[in-house]
Amino acid sequence: METKLSLNHKTVVIGPHQPFVVIGERINPTRRKKLAQALAQGDFRLVQEEAQMQVQAGAHVLDVNTGVAGADEAALLRGAVTAILEVVSVPLCLDSANPSALEAALAVYPGKALINSTTAEEKMMETVFPLVKQHGAAVIGVITDERGVPATPQDRLRVAARLLERAARYGIPAEDVIIDPLALTVSADHNAARITLDSISLIVKELGVNINLGASNVSFGLPDRKIINVAYLALAISRGLSTAITDPTVPEIQTTLLACDLLMGRDPYSGRWIKAFRQREKAALQARQEQ
Amino acid sequence: METKLSLNHKTVVIGPHQPFVVIGERINPTRRKKLAQALAQGDFRLVQEEAQMQVQAGAHVLDVNTGVAGADEAALLRGAVTAILEVVSVPLCLDSANPSALEAALAVYPGKALINSTTAEEKMMETVFPLVKQHGAAVIGVITDERGVPATPQDRLRVAARLLERAARYGIPAEDVIIDPLALTVSADHNAARITLDSISLIVKELGVNINLGASNVSFGLPDRKIINVAYLALAISRGLSTAITDPTVPEIQTTLLACDLLMGRDPYSGRWIKAFRQREKAALQARQEQ
Repeated sequence: METKLSLNHKTVVIGPHQPFVVIGERINPTRRKKLAQALAQGDFRLVQEEAQMQVQAGAHVLDVNTGVAGADEAALLRGAVTAILEVVSVPLCLDSANPSALEAALAVYPGKALINSTTAEEKMMETVFPLVKQHGAAVIGVITDERGVPATPQDRLRVAARLLERAARYGIPAEDVIIDPLALTVSADHNAARITLDSISLIVKELGVNINLGASNVSFGLPDRKIINVAYLALAISRGLSTAITDPTVPEIQTTLLACDLLMGRDPYSGRWIKAFRQREKAALQARQEQ
Repeated sequence: METKLSLNHKTVVIGPHQPFVVIGERINPTRRKKLAQALAQGDFRLVQEEAQMQVQAGAHVLDVNTGVAGADEAALLRGAVTAILEVVSVPLCLDSANPSALEAALAVYPGKALINSTTAEEKMMETVFPLVKQHGAAVIGVITDERGVPATPQDRLRVAARLLERAARYGIPAEDVIIDPLALTVSADHNAARITLDSISLIVKELGVNINLGASNVSFGLPDRKIINVAYLALAISRGLSTAITDPTVPEIQTTLLACDLLMGRDPYSGRWIKAFRQREKAALQARQEQ
């Protein structure tokens, strides 16, 4: 199944036989004081810089979160979207739990956006799915409902199926719902990541939908988190992960994702691998010359 | 299914719920001129150094290959095994295509060794399986037969099943046959790695045996091979790989394998991850102090 996102005439396709799609996570004020301050003042220059930097580093889509305590999120999300589209041309992932903010941003977005996210809670689905349908968007469906995160892969499959079934009632096709099976922290439960990996296998096999992970939560509370996060992406890709919200400016993440594409048969003639290697070599040479 | 290797009273268990087992690959004169020269002169000091270095770096088992053109391989393999066991205490993987060399080494090996390897070629199985049975060893069964490497996962499953069936005729249980589904080079065929990954899933599901890969062949002919090899290990572990012949002295390999154990639910309380992190910190501190 393929999820197509677009911005004007530019399309990004997420799917099992497509190169892995990186959704840049950096436009998010959570734990980023400078960005939060700039946003609170309605200053989008830092947002624009982050957008350019992430696209240059290889992001195919950009997540946009403007949740700052006390600020008008609708105005900020709309403003950020407009500012970002002045400097880059990639589809956006509108990241908010606030329906008015989503609505305001969707109104100025020229194409098919990704909405991040709805859970399987009835109230949330009733709010988000009409917006998705009305604006012809796609949506990330997070596997958690009124009772929290299901414990087993089988229960997570059931919640994923419910998300698709409810979406269908609103006329949203399954390919426009990307399932997020949630990465809980492995330091709190040593089986947390394994259960998520098994959930990915099961959901891909039974429902055939695309899978997204916000991959960095898994390593919370542990040292050397980057190594864990990179390994987790590879483990999940092997099970069918087709996109992730992650930081493309971390070189190890980019190179591992390219290596996974190469090894999963999505890089004919090793073309993208070799091209990226030459770019790294060129950048390293320039850095040496500038010293 | 669990494969138990031993040296005297020390046992290493390979299995789906066990920490990943690293078989150190460095005692092998192929493409290592200095080691080949030392071996040709019957000098095992370098072999001993490599053994100590690999065990220190985290190898659980050591592969021992003494194939040097023109030398008496039986004497060399027996000599190397004896020399290695003077300095380290881990089970060994005897790596030779020469039955006399395997026999000579098995005769002096105190425990249950791993034999690397037999293919599914009838003549080879007729030679190797009696040795495995006679010495109570385990064996790596490589998925290639008289017609070469099967093209599809289904055909590789059939060859794996034949290896197990022939081994059983000699009284060798399935748990003592570790299947190697072969990693061909992805630069020659962009689907090569994906087919091997799918073969691992299928063989683990249908036969339940342990899987080994010699993981570095996959990246032959490409730049930045280390990144590819590390990603390949993670992708394969996600499918059920339980051991690999690889280089434990490469830090990225060791840390990724530990991260994979952590994420696959094989590191309760993150204990091994945190311990290894502290060791890395301590080593880095010592290195700075020595400067």
